[in-house]
Amino acid sequence: MSSQGAYFCKVFCLESFFRPPGDPAMFDSVRLPHSLDKQQFEEVSEQLREKLLDAQFELQQRKKKTILLVINGSDGAGKGEVLNRLYEWLDDHYLETLSYGEPTDEERERPLEWRYWRDMPGYGRIGLVLGSWHHRALLLRATGKTGRDGFQAALEEINRAEEMLSQEGVIVVKVLLFMEQEKAHRRLTKIRKTSGALRRATVIEWEDTLKGKERQRLTRAALDMVERTSTGYAPWAVIAADDARYRDAAVADLLLQALERANVETAPAAQAVPRDPASLVALPRSSLVGSLDMTQRADPESYSDELARLQSRITELTTGRKFQKRGLVLLFEGNDAAGKGGAIRRVRAALDPRQFRVNGVAAPTDEERARPYLWRFWRNIPRIGHVSIFDRSWYGRVLVERVEGLCSREDWMRAYQEINDFEHQLDRARLSVVKFWLAITQEEQLRRFEDREARPTKRYKITKEDWRNREKWGLYEEAANDMIDRTSSQRAPWTLVEANDKKFARLKVLQTIVDRLEAEL
Amino acid sequence: MSSQGAYFCKVFCLESFFRPPGDPAMFDSVRLPHSLDKQQFEEVSEQLREKLLDAQFELQQRKKKTILLVINGSDGAGKGEVLNRLYEWLDDHYLETLSYGEPTDEERERPLEWRYWRDMPGYGRIGLVLGSWHHRALLLRATGKTGRDGFQAALEEINRAEEMLSQEGVIVVKVLLFMEQEKAHRRLTKIRKTSGALRRATVIEWEDTLKGKERQRLTRAALDMVERTSTGYAPWAVIAADDARYRDAAVADLLLQALERANVETAPAAQAVPRDPASLVALPRSSLVGSLDMTQRADPESYSDELARLQSRITELTTGRKFQKRGLVLLFEGNDAAGKGGAIRRVRAALDPRQFRVNGVAAPTDEERARPYLWRFWRNIPRIGHVSIFDRSWYGRVLVERVEGLCSREDWMRAYQEINDFEHQLDRARLSVVKFWLAITQEEQLRRFEDREARPTKRYKITKEDWRNREKWGLYEEAANDMIDRTSSQRAPWTLVEANDKKFARLKVLQTIVDRLEAEL
Repeated sequence: MSSQGAYFCKVFCLESFFRPPGDPAMFDSVRLPHSLDKQQFEEVSEQLREKLLDAQFELQQRKKKTILLVINGSDGAGKGEVLNRLYEWLDDHYLETLSYGEPTDEERERPLEWRYWRDMPGYGRIGLVLGSWHHRALLLRATGKTGRDGFQAALEEINRAEEMLSQEGVIVVKVLLFMEQEKAHRRLTKIRKTSGALRRATVIEWEDTLKGKERQRLTRAALDMVERTSTGYAPWAVIAADDARYRDAAVADLLLQALERANVETAPAAQAVPRDPASLVALPRSSLVGSLDMTQRADPESYSDELARLQSRITELTTGRKFQKRGLVLLFEGNDAAGKGGAIRRVRAALDPRQFRVNGVAAPTDEERARPYLWRFWRNIPRIGHVSIFDRSWYGRVLVERVEGLCSREDWMRAYQEINDFEHQLDRARLSVVKFWLAITQEEQLRRFEDREARPTKRYKITKEDWRNREKWGLYEEAANDMIDRTSSQRAPWTLVEANDKKFARLKVLQTIVDRLEAEL
Repeated sequence: MSSQGAYFCKVFCLESFFRPPGDPAMFDSVRLPHSLDKQQFEEVSEQLREKLLDAQFELQQRKKKTILLVINGSDGAGKGEVLNRLYEWLDDHYLETLSYGEPTDEERERPLEWRYWRDMPGYGRIGLVLGSWHHRALLLRATGKTGRDGFQAALEEINRAEEMLSQEGVIVVKVLLFMEQEKAHRRLTKIRKTSGALRRATVIEWEDTLKGKERQRLTRAALDMVERTSTGYAPWAVIAADDARYRDAAVADLLLQALERANVETAPAAQAVPRDPASLVALPRSSLVGSLDMTQRADPESYSDELARLQSRITELTTGRKFQKRGLVLLFEGNDAAGKGGAIRRVRAALDPRQFRVNGVAAPTDEERARPYLWRFWRNIPRIGHVSIFDRSWYGRVLVERVEGLCSREDWMRAYQEINDFEHQLDRARLSVVKFWLAITQEEQLRRFEDREARPTKRYKITKEDWRNREKWGLYEEAANDMIDRTSSQRAPWTLVEANDKKFARLKVLQTIVDRLEAEL
C-alpha cells in the first residue's frame, strides 16, 4: 500500500470505531478533520485507480466472488458523488448500481427480500447498493412502524443474511458517510439550488419526509445499527464526508481492500465451522422416517370420491377471495419412486392453470452457479395469489449434496439455519410453506423401479443414477432424519407421508393442504 | 399415426380452413359435428399420451426448440379445460403456463413486447400461452382503441415476430377453440353456477366487458386475424369445441405434430432464404464509413468548457420531469480501440447513477443461448425514466458474427429486418434509440493498440483477438457499411463519429444526444 494509502487507511480503518456497545462517543473520531489537498488527492487517486482496475479485472477473471458495496449516509453527505467517482475509477462493464426506493407492485407481491435477491450480481461483478436493506430497517424504525424489539430482530436477521452471503461468496462492504446534520443540510440546500451537472449527485433524499421526533429516532437507530451489524464478515466503515476528496479516496480504498480479500483463495480450514444446529422437533428420533407405519392403505372403494372432494375443496380455497392475499409453496421430497410426481399431479389438477408453476430441480444453469445457492429458488417464489410447487427443492443441499459429497460439511451444516431463515421470510410474506416427505420401503422401491423399466410411459423416469442412489439408502435416511429434525419449524413443519400405498399418500397430501389452507384463510 | 389419430386429424387439419381471404364461410367446416365417444376417446388418449411423453422427452433432451402453444377462443369454449388436460398428459416439469392479463406496473414501464420476452421458455420446454399477443390486438380492435389500419399493421407485425421466432427455434402453434357464441355463453353461465372443481376451468373471461357493437367488431376482427396471421411457420388451427373429448384430443394431436416437427433436424438448405433487405439510407455508398473526414479535431482550448456544458445539459434533460415519461437506449459500435469506452464514460458522468446501466456484450450465458438471439438484449431494456448504454450490441450478429462466420448467411441477412422491428418496438414505447459508429483509421488503431500494451491501466483492454480482428479490416468495413445502409431508420438513425481525435468524438456524441433529447422532450 502506498504511503498515502497507509495514511488514510490508518485514519478511517475500522478498529477505531468499534468500542463497547452503547458508548455514545462512537462517531467521535470521524469528527476529526479528514482532508486531502488537491495534490495529495491526485497522487492517491492515480494509484488507487490502477490498483482498483487490476483487482477488479482479477475479480472478473476468477468469477468466484461478488462484492456489494452498500453506501449509506445522511442526505447531502455525497452518496451520489461517491458513486460517480467509483464509476470513473472502475470498469463500468462489471459494475452496477442497485438502487431501492418504494417497491413496485411486483415487489410488493413477494417477500421483502425478493427485490434484493432478484438483482443479485453474478460472481465477478461489483454492485453499488443505494437504499439497502439497512436503509429500509432504519426508515421503518424512524417512522415508528417497527418498535424497539422489532428493530433489534431486524438487525439480527440482517446479520444472519450477511453471514450467509459472505459464506456463499458475496462480500458485503458497508459504508456510512458521516457528516454533521446541520452541515449536510446546508450542503443539500445549496446543491438543490444549483442546476445542471451537480444535481445528479443528490440521490436518495428521504430525510425531509421525517418529522423532528422521527429524526431523533433515526439518529439513535443508525448508531444502534452500526454497532449491532458490524460483524467480522460485514463490518461498517464510518467515513468522514466533509472533505469530498478524502471521502472518495477512503471509500475507494475500502473497496480495494475488499477486492484484495476477495481475490485471495480462502483455504477451507479458514472457514468458520458452524455451530451444530439445534433440533426443532421434540419427538424422539425413533419416530421419524425409519419407523413410520408403512402398512397404511386407502380404502379403494371410497378413494375416488374422497379424492374429488379434497380437490374440490382445494379449488374452492385457492380461487376464493381470501387466497388473493396469500400464496402457497408446496415442496415435495422423498425416496426415489415414492410417488412425488403422482401426488403433485393430483394437487395441480385442483388448481387454476394460470395460478401455479411446477418447478423441477435440475442441474443449475451457469447464471445460477454464479450466485448464492438459494438464488435459484428465490427466482421461483410465487407472487401473492399463486402457488409454486417444488418437486425436490432447496433441501437438495442437506440431502443429495450431503450424501454425495457435492458440498462441504460446513456448507450443509449451516444450510439448516439458512433454510429456516428463508422459509421464515416466505411465511412472513404470507406464503404458506407446506413440506412433504414421501417415504416408501426398500422393497416397495425395488418393485417400482422394475415396474418403471417395463412400462413405456414411465421408462424415462428411471436412470442408472436411481439404482446407484438406492445403494446409499442408509445414508439418505440419516440425512432425511437430520433434515426433518432441524427444519420442522412451527410455521413450516414437515409432513411425513407413508407412501407404500399411492392412494393413501395422495389423500394424506391433499388433506394436509386442505387443513393448512383452512387454518390460514 | 393410429386410425383414430388419422380420423380426427383429417377432420380438423388446417387445410380445410384456409380458403381465399374474405370468404365468410371460413368457420363452416368447424360447425360439422365433431365428437368422440367415451371408448374412442380412451383409445385415442392412451396413444396420444404415450407419444406426447416420448416426443416431449426428446424435445427436452435435444434442447434445440421451444414450443409455444397459443390457446385462444371464446369464453366458455374450454381453454382452461384443455390446459388441464395437457398438464395431465405431459410432463409438467418442462411445461409452463404463460398467462397475460392487465400489465403490471413493471410491464407498463417497458415496451409491450417485453412481458412476452421476459417469460420466454428455454429450448426444450413447452409454454402454454393464455391471453397472447393476438388476444391483446383483438381486444384493442374490439374496443375501438385500434382502427382498421392499425389492426392490419398489428397483424403484420405479429407475422414478422412469429417468423423470426420460428427461425430462432421457437415454434408457435396457434389454436382457436370454436364454439357458437350462444352455446358458449350458455355453457359459461352453467359453469359459473357450479362451484368447486369445475370452476377452475373458467379462465380468462373478458368478453363480458364488451358491449354489443364491440362484440360484433370482435367477431370480425377474429376472423380477420385467423386469415391474416395463418402463415406457413405459424398457422392457426380452428378446433370445434362442442365436444370436450374431441376438443382435447384435437389440441393434443396438434401439439404432437408440432413436437414431431421440432424433433426433426432441419437441414440448412430447407431454411427460407431471406429477401435481400432494402437499404434504408439514401446516401451513396461512398459516403459511409470509408470516406469520413478523419482529420476533424476538437479545439483543445475550449474542449473542457464545451464538455462540461454538454454534460450539464444532458443532466438537466434526463433529470427533468419530461424524461420521466421517456427512456433512452444508447448504443456504441465501432472499430476496436475507437474510444467507445471513453465516450461512454463522458455520457455516463452526466447521468444519475440510479438511472443507467452500462451493458457490455460478453459471451452469452447458457440461459441466453437457450433462447432467441434478441432475448439477452430484451433483458436489459431500460424502464421508463432510465437509460441503457450498450457497449456493443445486437449488431454483433451483422458485424462480428457475420465476419467470423459464427452464424449462417441466412441468419445475419434476416437480422437487419429483425433489428429494425426491434428498434421500432423500443421507439414506440418512447425509448429513444441513439446509435453511434465510432470510426478510426487503420493507422490510428495501430498507434492505440501499441499504446495500450504499454500502459498499465489499459493493458487489460488489449488481447490477441484484437490483433486478429485487425487483419480483417476490409471485411469489417463492408459489414459496417451494410449495417448502416440497412438499419438507419428514420427514428433510429446511425450517427457516424470521426474518432481519430478522441475529444472531437466525445463532443460529437454528447451533442448528438443533446440534440435528440431536445427534439424528443
